[in-house]
Amino acid sequence: MTLDIQRAGQIDQASLFHPFTWVEDLKREGPNVITEGKGVRVKDIHGNEYLDGMAGLWCVNLGYGCQEVVDAIAAQSERLSFFHAFNGMSTDVVIECADELLKRAPVPMSRVFFGASGSDANETQIKLIWYYNNLLGRPKKKKIIARWNAYHGSGVLTSSLTGLPGMHNLFDLPIGPILHVTAPHHYRKAAEGQSEREFSRALAAELEELIAREGADTIAAFFAEPVMGAGGLIAPPEGYFEEIVPILRRHDILLVLDEVVSGFGRLGTYWGSQTINVEPDLITAAKGVTSGYFPMSACFISPKLWEVFEAEAPRAGVFAHGYTYSAHPVGAAAALAALKAIDDKKVVENVAEVGPYLHQAMRNAFADDPIVGEIRGIGLMIGIELVKNKATKEPFPASDRVGRRVLQAAAQKGLITRALGDTLVFAPPLVINKSEIDELVQKFKAAVDAVRPELG
Amino acid sequence: MTLDIQRAGQIDQASLFHPFTWVEDLKREGPNVITEGKGVRVKDIHGNEYLDGMAGLWCVNLGYGCQEVVDAIAAQSERLSFFHAFNGMSTDVVIECADELLKRAPVPMSRVFFGASGSDANETQIKLIWYYNNLLGRPKKKKIIARWNAYHGSGVLTSSLTGLPGMHNLFDLPIGPILHVTAPHHYRKAAEGQSEREFSRALAAELEELIAREGADTIAAFFAEPVMGAGGLIAPPEGYFEEIVPILRRHDILLVLDEVVSGFGRLGTYWGSQTINVEPDLITAAKGVTSGYFPMSACFISPKLWEVFEAEAPRAGVFAHGYTYSAHPVGAAAALAALKAIDDKKVVENVAEVGPYLHQAMRNAFADDPIVGEIRGIGLMIGIELVKNKATKEPFPASDRVGRRVLQAAAQKGLITRALGDTLVFAPPLVINKSEIDELVQKFKAAVDAVRPELG
Repeated sequence: MTLDIQRAGQIDQASLFHPFTWVEDLKREGPNVITEGKGVRVKDIHGNEYLDGMAGLWCVNLGYGCQEVVDAIAAQSERLSFFHAFNGMSTDVVIECADELLKRAPVPMSRVFFGASGSDANETQIKLIWYYNNLLGRPKKKKIIARWNAYHGSGVLTSSLTGLPGMHNLFDLPIGPILHVTAPHHYRKAAEGQSEREFSRALAAELEELIAREGADTIAAFFAEPVMGAGGLIAPPEGYFEEIVPILRRHDILLVLDEVVSGFGRLGTYWGSQTINVEPDLITAAKGVTSGYFPMSACFISPKLWEVFEAEAPRAGVFAHGYTYSAHPVGAAAALAALKAIDDKKVVENVAEVGPYLHQAMRNAFADDPIVGEIRGIGLMIGIELVKNKATKEPFPASDRVGRRVLQAAAQKGLITRALGDTLVFAPPLVINKSEIDELVQKFKAAVDAVRPELG
Repeated sequence: MTLDIQRAGQIDQASLFHPFTWVEDLKREGPNVITEGKGVRVKDIHGNEYLDGMAGLWCVNLGYGCQEVVDAIAAQSERLSFFHAFNGMSTDVVIECADELLKRAPVPMSRVFFGASGSDANETQIKLIWYYNNLLGRPKKKKIIARWNAYHGSGVLTSSLTGLPGMHNLFDLPIGPILHVTAPHHYRKAAEGQSEREFSRALAAELEELIAREGADTIAAFFAEPVMGAGGLIAPPEGYFEEIVPILRRHDILLVLDEVVSGFGRLGTYWGSQTINVEPDLITAAKGVTSGYFPMSACFISPKLWEVFEAEAPRAGVFAHGYTYSAHPVGAAAALAALKAIDDKKVVENVAEVGPYLHQAMRNAFADDPIVGEIRGIGLMIGIELVKNKATKEPFPASDRVGRRVLQAAAQKGLITRALGDTLVFAPPLVINKSEIDELVQKFKAAVDAVRPELG
């Protein structure tokens, strides 16, 4: 069973159904086959090297081939390659992992519930929220508010929470009691001349109106990423969470922070919640918890919910939810090693330093660029939105696929980015240094310059 | 970060939210903390050894610590610890894995779509089914039929497919266009004196009536496990699929076989579909694909669906579905090693031999036991249903928790089983040998005998 390297592309196209890929593109271009990774770099099957500006998919925070995590995975696979936590079973590493995670929580949290992905964790959160209100005898309080442009996963209900029409169309979504409000996207959604603060107030008013219209007794929870990721890399405008959170509190609506991307340092604080100064009732973590080396997710459950679960347990019986991988010992060992490496390598401190450096370098390179509409983000999350007309914000025609062309030009220069429409985003490994950031910006500039002459 | 072994139980109870556990039990009894595994055996934190009659959760098919899989995981983690397959990206091992899986499919299949769990794979299947009918211009053909007692996962929609009221109550499920039909559970659901064949015909008639009532143009798919697992370990009665499948074909209803438990040899054939002699349109695989060493799932997509996806791709655009771990290179490496080990160790052949041996040994030990109502299953899936009255099938009162007491007695004797109500089930590693099976049956007999005097 050794892959015929010459035929890798053909075999890929004849066997693999790619996620988030257009079959037409794959047919025309073939796959780009990655084979090795070390630090912030990966190599493809032809030997070309890339600086991975996306840390895989916002997840390889410690970079590729981090020996501490690799060793922990190998050792634990050998010692106990699987066990579970159903029916009171447990494993030493999972206990230790839950304990270490709780010690690092941004606010006091009572319990951790494990899974294998951000999607399954958010499916769990939805079930926890409904369970909680049923135990409290509030059968009507079940609707969940999410935001347009949000990304919360790819399960049927988590795709429904996700606020991207492309993920709804052709799938009959959203389904279930999900409501969407306007994305906190000042550049695209604010009224002419509206300040960030004014825009935040307008979004708060929209939320208040929605709650009044639906009835607070029907609304259970509000989901939010601290900084929106896949929906366009959107940092909250000034005052946004300050305006929103008191409304939720007043109506006893749970706040779920989706920290799948922002957790473990990406914004320059250990948790995104600390950057946006918010105290969540539930936190969803994944990706960075193992730096993507092993599929693992964790739902953090605050005392507010846990006390109800515990008090009502005698009549509620068995908590009838869970996944085979809701406590994988190898995942726990990977996470323990990753948590230790985050501390030892001072990863969060690094982001606090190089994050602003990245933003400044990108601004230096592109602030006056006539096709760069906005540079946005926080820490090691940055988005550069390309536009046809900087003054009017007029976008390029979608059919020109300008973002994708820049992505391809970047790949040719040895840089991996991600195109969310015409917003190119970077979320590199959190161990990236300043000289690698210089290289990233320089290659990106070269890619934009390569595409520029083709644009009208 | 080293776990205080003395305090492991307390830390567990103060930090971990256990799946499928009653908080009251955990408070009273504390967790059972497993720390090591090798072959068919695991060890707990006190040094007690257990024969794992459940292969973890129906998944550690190759046994614990299978060196080939451990080594593959270690090597791949070092070489490329993560990558993805979004936007036409790929990795050499994932391509090879998709190819090897397709080569092993029970019927010609066109593509594999990867995920990290059986739940996420069945969420994918639901989305694929709706997508397919939308592309075909059949917007009404969306309802999905599953069966009571089925287990298809723990996401919101997959819990809804699952036919276990305990997983619906308190969670407001099922939601979505899901219909349930009677479980093919001859022992509990057949009419007095009804033969298996007659019962199968009655279930076929029920299905026909449901389709007529709802309208075939509203029904998209039918989900089935070849042998039901978590819902009570229920093998199909004689003639069941023979009766059911032609009805589905006649009404153009897709057949999704959930082979999460049955795939890769558990029933004594490589796939469960071969044991039940059925040709599925979609197959869900997970667990055994890596023997549980690494969270991985695979949806197999038949030409019937793929040809539509491909033909309609120009107008459908990007396939907007996928998980971060929809092509994890380490999972693929683990799967490649596991697939090779299944071949090299002649695992399927072993099941074909020791499966009947297990059933015979269990019958020898319990056929005349007055509290054993039925022994059922196929291959290395066996369930023993305990009853108060063998003649009338009267169960023990649920509040006596007889199944759980036997499970605990078995644990004391060094055997892990699983209690689905009062049905004790075994699904041991597929590499188990006859002498280990003898030990399993003997320990189980001792456990039943230990509990027997307490039963009225």
